Formats: sequence, C-alpha cells, structure tokens
Amino acid sequence: MSDTSHDPKQGPVPSRRAFLRGAAATGAGLAAGGAAAQNAPDPLITQVQDWASGTGDGVDATPYGMPIEFESDVIRRNVEWLTADTISSINFTPIHALDGTITPQGCAFERHHSGAIELRKEDYRLMIHGLVDTPLVFTYADLERFPRVNKTFFLECAANTGMEWAGAQLNGAQFTHGMIHNMEYSGVSLRTLLDEAGLTSAGDFKDKWIYVEGADASSNGRSIPLEKALDDVMIAFKANGEALRKEHGYPVRLVVPGWEGNLWVKWLRRIEVTAQAIESREETSKYTDTLEDGTARKWTWVMDAKSVVTSPSPQAPITHGKGPLVVTGLAWSGRGAITGVDVTIDGGKTWQKARLAAAGQPMALTRFYLDIDWDGSEMFVQSRCHDDTGYVQPTKNQLRDVRGLNSVYHNNCIQTWWVKETGEAENVEVS
Amino acid sequence: MSDTSHDPKQGPVPSRRAFLRGAAATGAGLAAGGAAAQNAPDPLITQVQDWASGTGDGVDATPYGMPIEFESDVIRRNVEWLTADTISSINFTPIHALDGTITPQGCAFERHHSGAIELRKEDYRLMIHGLVDTPLVFTYADLERFPRVNKTFFLECAANTGMEWAGAQLNGAQFTHGMIHNMEYSGVSLRTLLDEAGLTSAGDFKDKWIYVEGADASSNGRSIPLEKALDDVMIAFKANGEALRKEHGYPVRLVVPGWEGNLWVKWLRRIEVTAQAIESREETSKYTDTLEDGTARKWTWVMDAKSVVTSPSPQAPITHGKGPLVVTGLAWSGRGAITGVDVTIDGGKTWQKARLAAAGQPMALTRFYLDIDWDGSEMFVQSRCHDDTGYVQPTKNQLRDVRGLNSVYHNNCIQTWWVKETGEAENVEVS
Repeated sequence: MSDTSHDPKQGPVPSRRAFLRGAAATGAGLAAGGAAAQNAPDPLITQVQDWASGTGDGVDATPYGMPIEFESDVIRRNVEWLTADTISSINFTPIHALDGTITPQGCAFERHHSGAIELRKEDYRLMIHGLVDTPLVFTYADLERFPRVNKTFFLECAANTGMEWAGAQLNGAQFTHGMIHNMEYSGVSLRTLLDEAGLTSAGDFKDKWIYVEGADASSNGRSIPLEKALDDVMIAFKANGEALRKEHGYPVRLVVPGWEGNLWVKWLRRIEVTAQAIESREETSKYTDTLEDGTARKWTWVMDAKSVVTSPSPQAPITHGKGPLVVTGLAWSGRGAITGVDVTIDGGKTWQKARLAAAGQPMALTRFYLDIDWDGSEMFVQSRCHDDTGYVQPTKNQLRDVRGLNSVYHNNCIQTWWVKETGEAENVEVS
Repeated sequence: MSDTSHDPKQGPVPSRRAFLRGAAATGAGLAAGGAAAQNAPDPLITQVQDWASGTGDGVDATPYGMPIEFESDVIRRNVEWLTADTISSINFTPIHALDGTITPQGCAFERHHSGAIELRKEDYRLMIHGLVDTPLVFTYADLERFPRVNKTFFLECAANTGMEWAGAQLNGAQFTHGMIHNMEYSGVSLRTLLDEAGLTSAGDFKDKWIYVEGADASSNGRSIPLEKALDDVMIAFKANGEALRKEHGYPVRLVVPGWEGNLWVKWLRRIEVTAQAIESREETSKYTDTLEDGTARKWTWVMDAKSVVTSPSPQAPITHGKGPLVVTGLAWSGRGAITGVDVTIDGGKTWQKARLAAAGQPMALTRFYLDIDWDGSEMFVQSRCHDDTGYVQPTKNQLRDVRGLNSVYHNNCIQTWWVKETGEAENVEVS
C-alpha cells in the first residue's frame, strides 16, 4: 500500500542551501582545489582532531552501557510539589528530547504509591482465583511455559496533562505530557491463563470483572471488566526486549492496551474473577471525573486520542533561526490507531497535514513530522490528531463545555506552544 | 488480514495443570475456604513479605535507570582471544536472554577498530563531496532540519557465526549469533542529503559509488554503490527513541539496511561520491570470502536470511523438566521480510511450522515461537527460515559445498543445539 503521507522522498526538495556552509567556505574546498574560502576555515574540517588520532573505549568497557554524558538532559524529571513523598509520586518522560516511538525503559516515566520494590523472580507468585474452575498459583518459571505474545503499546497515566485543566501551568512538554511511554511488551495473554484456570463457572462474561493487585505495599487494587481481560490484556515480563526494569514492575506487570495507566498493575500478584467490581479505595476516591453538575464520571478507562508537539517546545527551543524547521510530536489513541495529525502554526486559523513516520498502530505511539520554512515570526503551534473511530482531538474549551471545570483526569485537549521570534517557546492557552 | 500463524489464541489450549501448583496446594485454598492443602503451604503465598509491607525507591531515585541487579546475566560479553586488543574487537548481544525484537542499546553488541570515541554534537561535521554539484558540510544542527524518517532494522556483522565455519566452536547463542542487534532508527535519508548537494554532475548512477568514513582513528572507509545509497540508506542520529550511545556511533552513524554491519560507519564524517570503488584496506584484506578454488568473493554486501533458536540454548537450559516448553528464537533477512520459520527437535528429520510473533518486517528481526510438549528425551533443535524472495536458510554442508572450507564471513547456516535429558544444551554439528 503506497501512502506518500509518510514518505519524505516525494514532492519538491526545498533547498536548504542558505543555511548550509558550503565545503568551500569551511576550507575543505581549498584542500580539494575548489574556490577560495569565503569565510574563515572551520578547524573541525581542516585540522585533525583528538578523537581522530587517539583510541577510545574497548569492547569490555561497558557490559551494560548508559547514555553518553552529553545527553544528560534526557532524563526523567519529577515535580516536587506534586505529592507529599517521592515514593507516592510521579516523574515524567523527557519526550521533548526523544524521537521515533520507542521509549527507553531507563527514562520512561514512573508512578508509584509506595515506591519501586525489589522482587526476585524466584519469589514471584501470581494467584488467579475467584470465579474460576480451579484456582491456580503461577511461579515466574511457570509463566515462561505458556504461549507468548509480543505487542507494542503506549501507557498513559489518566492524570497526564491534568495540571493543565487549570490553565497553562507547566513549561515543557515533558511536564505537560510526559506521563506516557511506549514499549514492545513480551508476555502471555491473560486469556491464556484464565482459560487455564477455567471460566465455566463464571457464567456470563459480560457482567463479570477481574480484580487485580500488586505485591507492593500499596497493592493498587483495580477492577477491570472480564471482557477486556479476555480481549487483549497481557501479563508482561519483558519490555523492549529485556526484563522489565525494577521501576516498571519487575518481574511481571499487567498490560491493559489503550486503558488508563493505573490499571497496568506492577509487581502483579493476584487476579480474582468476581461477580462485581470491588470499587476499591483508589477507584472511588481517585480516578473519577467530577462533572459540572457535581456527579462523577467513573470507570473512564479508555485513553482518548491525543497528540502534542514535542519540538519546538519550551525545553526544545529553535536555535537555528529562520528557514527550514522540523516540527515533530507524538499522537496516540486508546481506541485504535491514529489515522492523521494536523499541525497549525497560527493557533488554529489554518491547518496543515503532518506526515506520519509510519502508519498508525493500534494503541501505540505514532510519530509525526511537519517540515516548514519558518519566516522567523512568532507562532502558536498546535497539533490535532484523528483516530480510526473518526474521533478528532478536541480543544480545551470543547472539553470544558462537556466536563466542566473540576476535571482532574483525561485531559486530551489540543496543546499550544507560543514560539517567539527568538525561538523560545512558552506554554499558553489560546481561545 | 487475519493470520493465525502468529495468534496463540487459536487452536487447542493444552492444559498445563500437571506442572502448576493449585492454589489449594499452596495454602491459599485454606484462606479462601477451599480444599485442604495437599502439599506444604507456600510461604510466599501465606505470609506477608517484606516488599509488601515496606516502601521502595522514590521517583527521584534514578533519573536514568539501569536494569535491576538480578538481571546481571543480560550483558554484552566479549571473547578475549579474538583480537589483540579490546579497542579493535567485538562483543556479543545476550540474545539468549532477550525476547521480542528490540535490542536495548545498552547491551547491543559493539565492534570497534580503534575503540569507541567521544564526539560532541557541537564538534560533529559531515562532509559530502566528490561528484556532486556543490560540496557541503553539515553540522549536527543542520541535519536536524531535514525531513526525518523512522525505521527499524537489524545490524549484523558479516563475521557473525564466523567461528562456526570450523565446526561447533562456541557454547552459547550469544557467542555463535550475537553479532546482531535490532533498533528503531530516526534520522534523514541519505538521498535527501545527496539531492541537496546535487547529483547532476554524477552522470549515470548505476556505475557510481559513495566512499564513507568515520571520525575515529580507524576511520573504516567503505565503498557503497550509489544506487543503494539513494535507495534506503539513512543518516541516523537516534536509536530506540534516544540518542545513539557512544559505542554505537554518537552522534551520527550510517544505516545500510540489510547489508553488512561494517558498512554502517559510526561517527560518520565524510561521504564522497566517486566514479569507482576505492577498494580500501579493510575492503580488500578483510570482508572478502575465499572460495574453494582460491578466488575471492567480494562485495558480498547483503546479509542472507538466517535464524537461530535462542532458547533453549547452552546459556538458557531447560530447568523445568518435561512438559510444556516454549522454543523461541530470531529470524532475519537482508533481502526482505521473513515469511516463515520451521523448527525441528530431531535434527531435521521432521519440521514443524513455528509461530511468528508478528508479520515479518523487511530487514528487521522477527521473533518466532514454537510451543511443544517436551517428553524429556534428548533433542537436536534447529530453526530454518524463509524470506520473501523464496530463499530458504541452508545447512552448513550446503554452504560448504558452494563456498568451500575457507570462508570467514556470511555463515548463515542452520544452527543445532543438542538438548540433553537434563535440559542442558550444547552446540553441535549434525550431518
């Protein structure tokens, strides 16, 4: 299927000659017998550098490597005033500095309620009980003997962008939208394990639930409809090829594609098939949305389609001045696949169709790009995505009209960055 | 497109009841009012554990995290006798312990000729010259202004499995097949940059070349046909979402999809469009295959279709005894996409069709699984892959018939693991 919407080879190639330094200008032309240099020669071209004449690290230097020191900006960051203690807090993925779609585990955001625990594979147990034919307990080694599945999914916290309900609060895409990551999971489908326990005694699946909890002190009990559990929920033990990191629930976590991050219980310990939702503390006091009339919207599990421009953004200003500029960002939908992303630089008066780096994948992050020629004047940059249900990402005003002003969760509205002539960007609201 | 070849939900669900401990047996049944325990209760079920009653790490503990200490087996390893010095050596990806298809940068194999260097983005320069209309020099910041592409590709060293030409040498998939990794690259297509420099003066592309070299002392000059350069070669600056690691060529490397790893020059410094191949030292003294008649096969760029079972394998023995067993491995082809993988446990007498975790992607790693019921007797486990050109992975004897016994590179033959009744595995050759 040929789709030029994500093929940069199609269409005219705008010349970027104005900003590139010709080889002649750098002095290389002199060596190659070209025209005389018009500017001072670039010593990085004309002189042998240290790294080109010495040796570097051997292959035994880093059995498991870390990023180079020059990338120290690309880290998880937390906001200290958010919660009382760092063990029951959240940090943010540095999405302003990433590209592609995979989020490295090492800088993928964390959300804990009693901190990240150490749980060895040998000590790991998963109990499946309740309305099953035979209650079962699985060791980690047991789980590795069941048929495996691999799938890439985003995980987004329901509170992502939550502070922005009150207005433009945090100055950076990492902080406004960084409660999100995207990983390739390997594991066993929950359906396989539930079939092993047997569901004949569960009766009609449509009105049944599972209650899931983790092995950490906060346990984070959650109720999930049995239909969803049998559909695409995974018991995952690898992410991006290797074991889950300690902070991502080692050795086993739940994966609930497209649904709120809090359901993706880490250090998964127990799954109980039940006749009704447990309505645990976390489910009733948190993770419900208060509407304008005071009633509460609960069990809003699905993460709505959402997108954000990651660059330019407050933490990723334009430093090269006017001319060719790459605008990029991420889009995702918990209801299916992203089918398109529009970008505006005039605050929504006019929209251009962005290029998807690849066709959207269901419930996974999609990378988009728009190549523009920046004239150096201020911009109000936004992105707006579409998913395959026909849903279009709304503005904040459109959301407020429906939800009122007391929402905490599920803020998937269009984000605006005010990009100034200096190239610096600021988080703003536009009407 | 529905394809049940990679859907574990289809078909009969073999009961694994024989090896699972029922919840009643663990003592959980007692608490739940079930049958009396038939075995000693499992304290990991019946007693509150430390990690469930204490707290763990806060969200500020690891701005950039590493794997948990219990995963210390999952590291790059090198073989000291391979080369004279670790700066001009290679290490191996721990493929025996990975799953999925993404290889984390931190444990992805490295091959250097003068060690891994530190090269800052500000100091980075890329020159494109030779048979171009306008020679150009790009800074790193310049590269970020061109239209980007994202694509996942495997990189395999031409010498991968090379020691095995002489017989079954190394006891582990990491060592026999670990000169390989698979990453999602973000960058600019080389075509875009060559178009910027202009190729009208290059004449007929079919007989033109590019010569590429890196900024490290060993520079690693290589000749690549211009046709390939214009096809799918990338200038990459991100892998798996984040910057390339120092050891993978930070900040910029070449990506030559499906072709020998040595072409994927790291710390890319220069690209010269030339009328003929340079035939540099590395290209003539190494990376050519000596055939049986003494002539040399050169410029064997494309990595042929290949596969290997990663588990069970010498470093990943079967520890659970007979019964349900997951056989898994990787398959790939430099000529296109993997269309199927067969697995045998009797040394090739009979073959079963393995399940692909997902449809094969061109020039990227494919994960396969086969779920079997192991009767506990010894096995001779092999995998054999097919790609979309119709090519079938050959046996070592078939390769030797064509190439003779003096080959060093491009050993893509079928690999055999002798799995004993104990579950331990050994590298063997079978006729």
